[in-house]
Amino acid sequence: MNVGDRHFRTIWVNEDGWGVDIIDQRWLPHEFRVETLRDVKATATAIRDMWVRGAPLIGVTAAYGMALAMRADPSDTALDATWERLHATRPTAINLKWALDGMRSFLRPLPEAERAAAAYRRAGELADEDVELNRGIGRNGLAVIREIAGRKKPGEPVNILTHCNAGWLATVDYGTATSPIYLAGEENIPVHVYVDETRPRNQGAQLTAWEMAGHGVPHTLIVDNAGGHLMQRGAIDMVIVGTDRTTANGDVCNKIGTYLKALAAHDNGVPFYVALPSPTIDWTISDGLRDVPIEERADEEVSLVWGRDADGEVRQVRISPEATPAANPAFDVTPARLVTGLITERGIAAASTDGLKALFPEKVAAA
Amino acid sequence: MNVGDRHFRTIWVNEDGWGVDIIDQRWLPHEFRVETLRDVKATATAIRDMWVRGAPLIGVTAAYGMALAMRADPSDTALDATWERLHATRPTAINLKWALDGMRSFLRPLPEAERAAAAYRRAGELADEDVELNRGIGRNGLAVIREIAGRKKPGEPVNILTHCNAGWLATVDYGTATSPIYLAGEENIPVHVYVDETRPRNQGAQLTAWEMAGHGVPHTLIVDNAGGHLMQRGAIDMVIVGTDRTTANGDVCNKIGTYLKALAAHDNGVPFYVALPSPTIDWTISDGLRDVPIEERADEEVSLVWGRDADGEVRQVRISPEATPAANPAFDVTPARLVTGLITERGIAAASTDGLKALFPEKVAAA
Repeated sequence: MNVGDRHFRTIWVNEDGWGVDIIDQRWLPHEFRVETLRDVKATATAIRDMWVRGAPLIGVTAAYGMALAMRADPSDTALDATWERLHATRPTAINLKWALDGMRSFLRPLPEAERAAAAYRRAGELADEDVELNRGIGRNGLAVIREIAGRKKPGEPVNILTHCNAGWLATVDYGTATSPIYLAGEENIPVHVYVDETRPRNQGAQLTAWEMAGHGVPHTLIVDNAGGHLMQRGAIDMVIVGTDRTTANGDVCNKIGTYLKALAAHDNGVPFYVALPSPTIDWTISDGLRDVPIEERADEEVSLVWGRDADGEVRQVRISPEATPAANPAFDVTPARLVTGLITERGIAAASTDGLKALFPEKVAAA
Repeated sequence: MNVGDRHFRTIWVNEDGWGVDIIDQRWLPHEFRVETLRDVKATATAIRDMWVRGAPLIGVTAAYGMALAMRADPSDTALDATWERLHATRPTAINLKWALDGMRSFLRPLPEAERAAAAYRRAGELADEDVELNRGIGRNGLAVIREIAGRKKPGEPVNILTHCNAGWLATVDYGTATSPIYLAGEENIPVHVYVDETRPRNQGAQLTAWEMAGHGVPHTLIVDNAGGHLMQRGAIDMVIVGTDRTTANGDVCNKIGTYLKALAAHDNGVPFYVALPSPTIDWTISDGLRDVPIEERADEEVSLVWGRDADGEVRQVRISPEATPAANPAFDVTPARLVTGLITERGIAAASTDGLKALFPEKVAAA
């Protein structure tokens, strides 16, 4: 998408031909910074410390990390060590494992001398494929928005609630949950987005709001507490969120707090959609609560809040007493029973084993 | 309760005999500041800008505001003007109207010369009565905690989730939701409190955590998004919250986000209790969603976060783009069907017209 007048993806190969450039998302919306990753260590740091985040982008970043590793040392030992190192960065998003498995099995049969070039080529293909998947999600989600718009008075916007950032910043481009929103804009279907701020890291306030503002999408920031109230008052027509891992039976693991919004949507008859590219589906598990590992992050993410002060300096402030510990589970699981539909690149699946099987028969056979 | 070694209430008459001292809660937990209110204007500011907050404390503060007004001008005109001015400060908490109505009908029949002294006396009685109501809530809520503790292994704490601050800072002393917790501590029943930070103003992180830390209650700060996940994992034994207005049929209006926790408690079979003194019940209405006015506060409360920086200075930081507007509904309504029980000074009522009628027959007859 555009930043100012220039088109950006979230990750690309540096003009030197081998460094990997990323948007360092920790500084948004206050500063737009690009960093160049030049080795596996930097790649691991960028994923773990959330310079990049979002399941699809984590996957592609790990793929490029493999390429950086192969350039330094194309041995089988390095291949396995890189898999281990990058896989350990974040536990919940399945795209990380999917990308690392894919890269390793692609590179293993190749002669060492060919691995680096092949790895860059394959990582670039994954990036391009992510963009295409998201365009497909956009087209399928757009049908839902268009249908709701058809029931509105002319000019009345479709009010969409979203949580965290499943925008273009969470992917290579377009985003998952935001892709239908951007396409609705291209079709001049009026939409208005309620943006959950998404504590503790405020990805909604910092990233989704920045995306919406940057592309002229009417939007309103709300605290995570407000969504239920808005649904009770009829202010929300639909919810669209992303996911870090969806199980074969349609349980949705996503940013902490998603489950609460799904409960409120269910209680108020508001459709609750999850947008996801198929690499986010973990075909090997079928009980989200039991089988998806939930990342516990540092308690400072809760106690300290980043922002820009009146002098323009980006800094942290502590909101709680020093003596107060915090817990910071980063994800929760929304049971399939609360999900209206899974918007994938192939179409909208019911959140169930049968629903996913119908769209992805070859995956179910393989698992 | 104690601050350091000294006992404090949240409001008291200054040693000059007429000023009204309050704890200015905007600075907690970083600084403990006491301010003296000397006129109605200052009282209105203190309520509207949340130097004091919490339904019971708002009521008592308004009562003292009436006393300050009568000292300056004991006329009927001043009585009515003060009622109007203070009533306009905040729309949702019914205790404000309850206290103002009570003061006005008490003072109106008195000769003007006696009104000021009578008003201070009556405001002091309301403060004392609030403390007694909260002790009663504590005893009744303690029975619930004791019963849950009885099903635990020895030494295993009862895990309680609370939202916002319904602590001693929200009342004159003891608190509503926290009163059973403090009494459990006195009985050496092990409890552990999960404290919702309560965006946008962070009353949980700033006030409840400070109370818990100050009284040695084991506690953990969490973001508002985390409670559903913790309930799914069996980490919460009960929820206790306060309320700003409860309707005659048991609908509970409380700080924004309460409804989401009630939904999660219901979905996971976790008991969801509301602690309230009877002045918080609005006997004149019986549909919370339709009849309780929901305060909309300034959007800066969402966009700007207060905290202490690394240099010890208390300051605000902006978390979102300048171009992003915010909406800030301050309360939501939890339907009675999601409430396990209403813990009052007289006992625990079912959240229903019949349940409240059984405990407060004289109120239902009067309404």
